[in-house]
Amino acid sequence: MRQLVVRNCSVLVVPQVGECRVDEAQDIHIQDGAIIRIAETEPAYTEVEVLDATGLLAVPGLTNSHTHSPMVMMRGAAEDVSIDDWFNRKIWPMEVNLTPERVKVGARLACAEMLLGGVTTFVDHYFHADQIAAAALESGIRADLAPTFFSSTGTEGREAAFEAAREIRALGQSSGRITASLGPHAPYTVSDEDLRRTAEVARTEGFRVHLHAAETDDQTHSSIDQHGVTPIEVLARTGVLEAGALIAHGCGIRDADLALLQPYRDRTAIACCPKVYLKLAMGSTTPIKALQENGIPIGIGTDGAAVHNTLDVWESLRLVALTQKQREQNAEWMTISDTLRLATRGGATAAGLANLTGALEPGRRADIALVDLKAPHHQPVHDPRANLVYSTRASDVVHVLVDGEVVVRDRTLTKVDLTGIIEDARSLAHTLVDLSANATIQTYAP
Amino acid sequence: MRQLVVRNCSVLVVPQVGECRVDEAQDIHIQDGAIIRIAETEPAYTEVEVLDATGLLAVPGLTNSHTHSPMVMMRGAAEDVSIDDWFNRKIWPMEVNLTPERVKVGARLACAEMLLGGVTTFVDHYFHADQIAAAALESGIRADLAPTFFSSTGTEGREAAFEAAREIRALGQSSGRITASLGPHAPYTVSDEDLRRTAEVARTEGFRVHLHAAETDDQTHSSIDQHGVTPIEVLARTGVLEAGALIAHGCGIRDADLALLQPYRDRTAIACCPKVYLKLAMGSTTPIKALQENGIPIGIGTDGAAVHNTLDVWESLRLVALTQKQREQNAEWMTISDTLRLATRGGATAAGLANLTGALEPGRRADIALVDLKAPHHQPVHDPRANLVYSTRASDVVHVLVDGEVVVRDRTLTKVDLTGIIEDARSLAHTLVDLSANATIQTYAP
Repeated sequence: MRQLVVRNCSVLVVPQVGECRVDEAQDIHIQDGAIIRIAETEPAYTEVEVLDATGLLAVPGLTNSHTHSPMVMMRGAAEDVSIDDWFNRKIWPMEVNLTPERVKVGARLACAEMLLGGVTTFVDHYFHADQIAAAALESGIRADLAPTFFSSTGTEGREAAFEAAREIRALGQSSGRITASLGPHAPYTVSDEDLRRTAEVARTEGFRVHLHAAETDDQTHSSIDQHGVTPIEVLARTGVLEAGALIAHGCGIRDADLALLQPYRDRTAIACCPKVYLKLAMGSTTPIKALQENGIPIGIGTDGAAVHNTLDVWESLRLVALTQKQREQNAEWMTISDTLRLATRGGATAAGLANLTGALEPGRRADIALVDLKAPHHQPVHDPRANLVYSTRASDVVHVLVDGEVVVRDRTLTKVDLTGIIEDARSLAHTLVDLSANATIQTYAP
Repeated sequence: MRQLVVRNCSVLVVPQVGECRVDEAQDIHIQDGAIIRIAETEPAYTEVEVLDATGLLAVPGLTNSHTHSPMVMMRGAAEDVSIDDWFNRKIWPMEVNLTPERVKVGARLACAEMLLGGVTTFVDHYFHADQIAAAALESGIRADLAPTFFSSTGTEGREAAFEAAREIRALGQSSGRITASLGPHAPYTVSDEDLRRTAEVARTEGFRVHLHAAETDDQTHSSIDQHGVTPIEVLARTGVLEAGALIAHGCGIRDADLALLQPYRDRTAIACCPKVYLKLAMGSTTPIKALQENGIPIGIGTDGAAVHNTLDVWESLRLVALTQKQREQNAEWMTISDTLRLATRGGATAAGLANLTGALEPGRRADIALVDLKAPHHQPVHDPRANLVYSTRASDVVHVLVDGEVVVRDRTLTKVDLTGIIEDARSLAHTLVDLSANATIQTYAP
């Protein structure tokens, strides 16, 4: 029986609905990785390990609800380009260079960046996902991993991706921290037949499906022009929604799509990554208000660092608040409490971990970020909830626990050697952005 | 003769036009506060003070082109409200509580936050500006300060504000770091007669005018409805543009206004603070592309922390890049180089310091931020310029020089006691947000 008390912190309480609150001078009691009690602080403990959190604010560990973690290796290598050029001239030609080793090195760096910034779960969609699983296991982070495939790789590619998901799930069962999803890329790169087969495997074997859909209004237009249906209709008629899906972006979701999503709101969620929509000038963002009115859960993500440049979910959640206020032309909408709920409970639901993580309450896993609000950019603190949304930097995170284990202590990773990770990333970086093969893994023509 | 060498850094070179570049392994030679030479690094120096900057990137110190620094005291105290409620129910009733001491404490905290984040100049607009001057002098930061007035305070209030500007200018002449501007609040709170008088004093005595104008499309509509002219036309016909103005926001600037601004492009600039426009759901942002096509300089600012929640210009410049790409629906626009130019040269011009600061080149004052790109959120570094715009946090700033003086060393302020500053801010914080007087300094009804 492993016991730990996170002692004398403030605690961010995120209810299912309504305003968040901060309880002061609390102890979080953890047993075998789960929170068993949160109560007023005691002066001292004997025979129990204690993490002194005096002066810190405990926040449910954040979830990065959609990313391609190994793409940190291409950070800053595809700037100031259109979405077409980003795919066709930069990223997909660069991804010809992917190898298991390079993916592993990137995933290790990504896990380090996320943990140091208080991200305790990431929901990933990429190639060589077994390597990402290994990196996640090693670092102590929680992850759901979807091995990516395109229909261009044929039945063999599709079935290999399914098999990779099965293997990751088997591997993860021992740790309890790693789960797998099926990862078709998007309706514009995966055929209806392959989506049908994905839905069937998902239903039969109990996977969820993680994919991109309706990323932009243009994609929705194009889908209607070419196929007479929206991308969400494609997911409905191929059974993907029924199987349960995490849909990345959804900026092109139309009002009529809401009725298709609504019956599956217990198993389908949308991930919003607003920095990317602004940076690629995509013209719209996820219609969170309309989705929420239909009960559809929302998570917040960074997407890959080849466009987002960081895996910083504080930055993402702040941009969700700002861009949603702008979208609805209502400064009273997407409040601080609602934003924090998306980044915590919403993220847990998006990751398929709704009752396991996303809140600091007895029975949930002890995934906790301890944040320091004492620096000048936070002072004076009139409302710590406002600080979390509008002033916090990832570097304000001091300690991080996943499954009750201290994986970051005093801003330092406890389970992996950061220096070695960075050295490996530096030494391989040039190999990832090499365009000399003059080839590509896919063409963006949605 | 004071001499200092900032040794063995990379240097961000920001040309007047075209792409920025990074020169590696450079020494920046400083004499009596000015950069006298930048050249390949030497192995060692004798008889000259050296700041070892190995592994760091030297960036021109950032300019916060529009702020109300003491409003850090109200950080987080006016959240999730409309622009009307922000002014009429929160901020202007709170500002009944302003006293010289409270303003001083806020300004000291603000200077600390800005310097630690690599901001070497701020352009301020607030009450009790003499207290802000004292705080700026003490901390070592550079500042231009505009004592604010409304017409509601009568001729006496106006003339007192002008006199305050004269006194600050006199005070600043000895340090060389403090300048003053005239600070009418906005065309909707200051009469045309008072704006004319402001322009006259500015022209006669060599001041510039710093004010808010055309902050939103609504303000422009309202000005046309009530007065038959746009806010920029008001500034033109009262002589404010001719005198030389720094205009905050300008989101409501119309195409026809450009021809009014264009003849004064050698003395008039616009400050863009995009986080505020999103957070208050203002509906538009500064039309930077149109302004630049007319040669009008642009700076980047945070506005006050009572709405922006930080004084972090890295955050602001990133949001300028993102929101301008969105505004123009063009991901190839507002490039990394152009964004860095706005935050450096643009800021210097906005502050009235065009030839003095804003670039690292011989003859300019040595205002320098030394940034560390070695943390995981920056790695691997394919393009350090991209890191500066899209990955850098204020906490990546290690050392800061203003006028050749090291005012931040190893992330620590050298000239002031941060602990005392924060204690003072905490002890007074409640007095600033007290609404029990049930009064206000002004009504927002533009």
